[in-house]
Amino acid sequence: MTTRFDPIAATCPAPQAETERVLLGHGSGGQLMAELLADLTPRLGAGTLEDAAIVTTGTPEIVLSTDGFVVTPRFFPGGDIGSLAVHGTVNDLAMMGAVPVALSLAYIVEEGLPLDELRRVTTSVAEAARACDVRIVTGDTKVVGKGAADGLFVTTTGIGVRLPGAHVAAANGRPGDAVLLSGPIGLHGITILSTREGLGFESSLASDSRPLHRLTTAMITAGACGVHTLRDPTRGGLASALNELAAASGVAVELDEPAVPVPAQVAAACDLLGLDPLHVANEGCLVAFVDPARAEAVLAAMRARPEGACATRIGTVVAGPSGRVTMRTLVGSRRVIDMLVGEQLPRIC
Amino acid sequence: MTTRFDPIAATCPAPQAETERVLLGHGSGGQLMAELLADLTPRLGAGTLEDAAIVTTGTPEIVLSTDGFVVTPRFFPGGDIGSLAVHGTVNDLAMMGAVPVALSLAYIVEEGLPLDELRRVTTSVAEAARACDVRIVTGDTKVVGKGAADGLFVTTTGIGVRLPGAHVAAANGRPGDAVLLSGPIGLHGITILSTREGLGFESSLASDSRPLHRLTTAMITAGACGVHTLRDPTRGGLASALNELAAASGVAVELDEPAVPVPAQVAAACDLLGLDPLHVANEGCLVAFVDPARAEAVLAAMRARPEGACATRIGTVVAGPSGRVTMRTLVGSRRVIDMLVGEQLPRIC
Repeated sequence: MTTRFDPIAATCPAPQAETERVLLGHGSGGQLMAELLADLTPRLGAGTLEDAAIVTTGTPEIVLSTDGFVVTPRFFPGGDIGSLAVHGTVNDLAMMGAVPVALSLAYIVEEGLPLDELRRVTTSVAEAARACDVRIVTGDTKVVGKGAADGLFVTTTGIGVRLPGAHVAAANGRPGDAVLLSGPIGLHGITILSTREGLGFESSLASDSRPLHRLTTAMITAGACGVHTLRDPTRGGLASALNELAAASGVAVELDEPAVPVPAQVAAACDLLGLDPLHVANEGCLVAFVDPARAEAVLAAMRARPEGACATRIGTVVAGPSGRVTMRTLVGSRRVIDMLVGEQLPRIC
Repeated sequence: MTTRFDPIAATCPAPQAETERVLLGHGSGGQLMAELLADLTPRLGAGTLEDAAIVTTGTPEIVLSTDGFVVTPRFFPGGDIGSLAVHGTVNDLAMMGAVPVALSLAYIVEEGLPLDELRRVTTSVAEAARACDVRIVTGDTKVVGKGAADGLFVTTTGIGVRLPGAHVAAANGRPGDAVLLSGPIGLHGITILSTREGLGFESSLASDSRPLHRLTTAMITAGACGVHTLRDPTRGGLASALNELAAASGVAVELDEPAVPVPAQVAAACDLLGLDPLHVANEGCLVAFVDPARAEAVLAAMRARPEGACATRIGTVVAGPSGRVTMRTLVGSRRVIDMLVGEQLPRIC
């Protein structure tokens, strides 16, 4: 809130009431997106639509998750739209404590896309699925005219079976829980941005896109019932993921800045571009709230896997204020970590 | 094969070898699409990708199906992209003999779409799902920049539970089977085309978009194990659906032209536009191959439901030649009914 003279406000006429329109920021994974979902999901008669949901059709519990992928460019260091679509949906299942069983694959293709590109993406989908031990069982292809889509959009939907010992949910965080992070942040977002804009960082960076279901299985096995929440901080970054979990659990989170692993090149790119690495998207790490009595055992299980080799404790869950995320900085001060507002990097996934 | 002089071939230079590109016809539901899928699906390590697939995670059998919807216009007499997306996926599950349990919903939205339109579509999704007794359990929303998509694309994925008595499969047709059709053909495609182009037929026509899972349940219950195949003739129309079933079952189909119900206005529109009603898309009827001993019982069960009130027998399955569909015309001659080649009506669903 400022009362200083604002030359833009002073010279521009007040905007007329006009049609509300969808903004790029509505797809950001941040605050605007939360508002859009709060507007739409009650119309579906649903409470909150999580990234994945349990469909109770008996035992074992079946979990369903869907994700659309519109990333540009479609090929980037560390992956492409096909492998990303497989990993993204596999990871949404994994964050529910489920082991993926089968995927469906829906393409929306712009007329004129080179057929070889569609073949490359399809081969990449197949290889990623094989590496995840998940089958592509059904699919759909729609073609729209030139200019009616931007090349290729991929929607993957996965079904998985929940591990018997999995009691994870966004609302299950408790004061005292350790906040664990599986690996460095910011790699996916900075790689995509740098590749798209030709900034040069992409020569020494790669997306962290990879499947996390084996890591979550190891965590849940080691943690007994002590793994309370799991979340992969994709759109909106670590900051938005922690804000969502804190709000859902009615707790606060205190982060320790020196403990948050930001690769030097990600930090350099963020400095240059004016981005906060806490808001940059990831596709291959996860954050968890874990019972403090089980935290060391879970950390050890994470570090025993390649995708969790750099796992570390980055903070603590405290009683409140509900939904508040703060970070103790290098110089000892505290700052509030907000959700991403608006759109930082569109079409990141 | 013709050796007649072709003035176009004689005056145009032979086309150079160039990049193969995706054509609108690759999304038609017809021959070109079959070629594209034959190219892509082996890369997925899958045999044939049906519209829905059984995911064997125990008993009961779980069925998965996905469909992208890119219809234009998004609102049309008889429905909109939201209700169509629900009905389309529910029907793909129904054609496997499954009862739908849950749906996921993925939006790809173009920046600038009026928010009210997104609200209307979401309300329509909810109403259609409620009418189908199926829950929307999870979702995803991506926003792309202006010009990178055409308004709104919707991908729905459904999971269903297979009825214990359901032994339907595309390959299960047998010589002697009755070919049953649940209602009139051509309504969806002609309504969309007429609405899009302002041809005027839309004032007295409406899409047949509706759920068919209660009809299939009634058929399977009445048919014991006599319902061999089920297919909803969407893209590519009745002709393409019958060609696919005949090829999959290694049988031929003989249709009786006077028996195929084509509404007068659909026939008039097709005459005017040079379309074959057998190639026009439907969203609310189905075709079945049924054991002749059970055909009357199944027909009676179909006619007892509103969506099957006009059910009728339109032909017979015969031994061969495999994959051949022919029709005895009004004047007594026989003509071969081919799959749709290329694209007749793009973005029909």
